Amino acid sequence: MTLKKHNPSTIAAPAGAYSNGISAPGSGRWLHIAGQVGINVNGALSEDIEQQAHVVWSNLLAVLADAEMTVANLVKVTHFLVRPNDMAAYATVRASYLLDARPASTVLIVQALAKPQWLVEVDAVAWKSDGQEPA
Amino acid sequence: MTLKKHNPSTIAAPAGAYSNGISAPGSGRWLHIAGQVGINVNGALSEDIEQQAHVVWSNLLAVLADAEMTVANLVKVTHFLVRPNDMAAYATVRASYLLDARPASTVLIVQALAKPQWLVEVDAVAWKSDGQEPA
Amino acid sequence: MTLKKHNPSTIAAPAGAYSNGISAPGSGRWLHIAGQVGINVNGALSEDIEQQAHVVWSNLLAVLADAEMTVANLVKVTHFLVRPNDMAAYATVRASYLLDARPASTVLIVQALAKPQWLVEVDAVAWKSDGQEPA
Repeated sequence: MTLKKHNPSTIAAPAGAYSNGISAPGSGRWLHIAGQVGINVNGALSEDIEQQAHVVWSNLLAVLADAEMTVANLVKVTHFLVRPNDMAAYATVRASYLLDARPASTVLIVQALAKPQWLVEVDAVAWKSDGQEPA
Repeated sequence: MTLKKHNPSTIAAPAGAYSNGISAPGSGRWLHIAGQVGINVNGALSEDIEQQAHVVWSNLLAVLADAEMTVANLVKVTHFLVRPNDMAAYATVRASYLLDARPASTVLIVQALAKPQWLVEVDAVAWKSDGQEPA
Repeated sequence: MTLKKHNPSTIAAPAGAYSNGISAPGSGRWLHIAGQVGINVNGALSEDIEQQAHVVWSNLLAVLADAEMTVANLVKVTHFLVRPNDMAAYATVRASYLLDARPASTVLIVQALAKPQWLVEVDAVAWKSDGQEPA
């Protein structure tokens, strides 16, 4: 059993590193990842959007790994930015982590995140076929 | 097995085309749909909120169909607008597609979507009981 | 079968009442809760953020109960505020309902909710192991 991508030819092809839809059987294991921000394990936060984005994705990978998953298991990713002009820089960092993974994706520019110094936050849902609980 | 709606009498009844909660057994098939915007298959985007909304919902139906689902399979729909005054026009279009489907729903007015000309974006989660992978 | 929390030591520990990730087998029952706002069963809405937050969480508990679940079944909660300064007051109310539940969580400050007088909205996903449809 695998994730199945849904990119029907009757709508515009994905304009980036995502799929228009992804489906999975319920019989696997589902992981919901909290919104990750640019704070590293030592509590440090860069003022730079690229550095914050790298920490966000490093954090996402760590949570995936804790559930014995990788970016290939991502089903849906939601990206929150606070400055519209950060989109290009963010997308470059994101692409470097997603590799050829193409989860369903939504990008939103919001008024703010929970702390005013946070520039980017990403949450996600992932799925793995075996359904086994990690040790 | 079917979707079960949860509208307890101890809270206000839904004030629109949604349910306060929907539950489903995990044993079916789950579809996550990326945020759909008003770009049609030819790459065209109208400046009009109603036209963008029609394309958004046409796109959602296409992704559902690709997974052998319809609006009746929608479990959760999240609607993103950028102009508060577009809500009424958007709701009219949405109702014309949802028919009697009543997914759980959240409406947000955000600062912007990924492109400044996008006025509406909608993402969704759907479920189908058979759990079979579409051909 | 139970929910498994994922808080890897390689990222910062949760800075509040949440887990960095939660996973669940698909074989249980999944509940998606629509965005709940501060309108009580009589249609009344307070202008006060704390009162609105209490109604939001009372509504969430009611939908959970209708699906025979409690806050212990919450997998993901997304919190939407419109005024950044409401975060502290909201967090206090939230903590009084979450008790020791630690769902994955995202907090966003958005431009507005569907009605201008709404100050807080919360939607959620929950899971229960038995997979039985409530009576």
